[in-house]
Amino acid sequence: MGGPHISRTVADLRAQVKDWRRQGLGIAMVPTMGALHEGHLSLMREALSRADRCIVSIFVNPTQFAPTEDLDKYPRQLERDLERLAEVGVQLAFTPAPEEVYPKGFATKVVVGGPSAGLETDFRPHFFEGVATVVTKLFLQAAPDCAVFGEKDYQQLCVVRQLCRDLDIPVEIVGAPTVRDGHGLAMSSRNAYLDETGLAVARQLNKVLRNASAAIAGGADPETETAKAREALLQAGFRSVDYVAARESGTLAPWREETEGRLLAAAWLGTTRLIDNVEIAART
Amino acid sequence: MGGPHISRTVADLRAQVKDWRRQGLGIAMVPTMGALHEGHLSLMREALSRADRCIVSIFVNPTQFAPTEDLDKYPRQLERDLERLAEVGVQLAFTPAPEEVYPKGFATKVVVGGPSAGLETDFRPHFFEGVATVVTKLFLQAAPDCAVFGEKDYQQLCVVRQLCRDLDIPVEIVGAPTVRDGHGLAMSSRNAYLDETGLAVARQLNKVLRNASAAIAGGADPETETAKAREALLQAGFRSVDYVAARESGTLAPWREETEGRLLAAAWLGTTRLIDNVEIAART
Repeated sequence: MGGPHISRTVADLRAQVKDWRRQGLGIAMVPTMGALHEGHLSLMREALSRADRCIVSIFVNPTQFAPTEDLDKYPRQLERDLERLAEVGVQLAFTPAPEEVYPKGFATKVVVGGPSAGLETDFRPHFFEGVATVVTKLFLQAAPDCAVFGEKDYQQLCVVRQLCRDLDIPVEIVGAPTVRDGHGLAMSSRNAYLDETGLAVARQLNKVLRNASAAIAGGADPETETAKAREALLQAGFRSVDYVAARESGTLAPWREETEGRLLAAAWLGTTRLIDNVEIAART
Repeated sequence: MGGPHISRTVADLRAQVKDWRRQGLGIAMVPTMGALHEGHLSLMREALSRADRCIVSIFVNPTQFAPTEDLDKYPRQLERDLERLAEVGVQLAFTPAPEEVYPKGFATKVVVGGPSAGLETDFRPHFFEGVATVVTKLFLQAAPDCAVFGEKDYQQLCVVRQLCRDLDIPVEIVGAPTVRDGHGLAMSSRNAYLDETGLAVARQLNKVLRNASAAIAGGADPETETAKAREALLQAGFRSVDYVAARESGTLAPWREETEGRLLAAAWLGTTRLIDNVEIAART
């Protein structure tokens, strides 16, 4: 098992893709910021089930971090990441340096409206501009047939879908279910910041969301239930709660009971910010 | 001479492009807003000299007009335009309806910095957002190898180059010289708004710019010369002058004497706004 081909430049990536296209091979992509865990690996397995070749980009994108955020301490472990790609059978790792992605004089941004409104944007105002711009670039650099994103970052998944539809980027966006530990905690690179006590609190996030979601699906008032969920998170040991919100699936417009919904939350555990979301079943 | 194939939808356009790609043909594109004149035709001839097939889009893009601008009265003459495409030998006309380009729920924009700063942007603040967004879409819809833009809209040419470089859009941008009438007036769809008296005044625009450019290249102070040019335009009969400015070629940063430059102007003749630009030769 030789491990993936490593492309550090767009030119090298494109040469490899061109070669695959000449052979008539289908290509899937999984954009990541590295620090790969079981959640990422599940996206890659999904990608490999849909295409002959899988490209994984590993790039900690500076433009989606605010100056106050954890860009510098975000976990970087390229050697270990490459081993995991080899285990799953990924054929290409795209690991560009920041100056390869944003050369001197770079001056363009992609701004997506619609599902980017509210939720994460209320707390990280430029986050989705950073995501949309780098995803546009990665897609146009690699030109895959499809790309797999985790439902863990549900708002991001909706924004990327809107982006591709609006700009006619010919990449099919596939959403894949969140991978969780045995206690329901969503896999996240930021879990690495937590000690045992923190993990025990973190595991309450999904539990609280599932309870509230079941109550709302069962007929309870969403305003009341999200307020109760917020209180339950603080009781469980979260330091503060950015939001708990019921939204319509896909558009992320305010939830209406006749449609499928999503209950989304972000909360702080010490200096670590965790997000999660669960489905709200349509009322029958 | 059968005239061009007409695609009204992105799906039809892509089907035709896919067929050409299967045959190994090269494709060039000329984005236009219709009302085609000799300037446009020269871009198409340039495109056909570079590729086996030429796609011309004819789309009056609403997002690059401000509410106060001439969207409604902008000249539309599709039948005549299609005849001209047939004369030049263009193979495909892409003539989408506004709702094909901007379907319900559309919510994304592309914002280019760098050369979009100042000049047109000072007077049409959202113009280049509209241009950059529609050009991105057209390029990703048609996926040409190259696209030809006129130097007449010099700032637009610089912005489109920056856009493609920044977002990794794999389309080569070709700039083509401005086509002028026998009196130096740059061909423009907006010339159709002018009567004989207006045309006589309009023809002074290029003359004034050439004089100022020669003076600057010869060592005169650019501030003084652009002020004199502004005065000369008003004297010639222009109602007002939005700008006359000396800039560095390509970047459109302030002009420095050791580099090649561009002298750009926009001025009003009654209710018609005209733009033009000329080279400033590097001082030797």
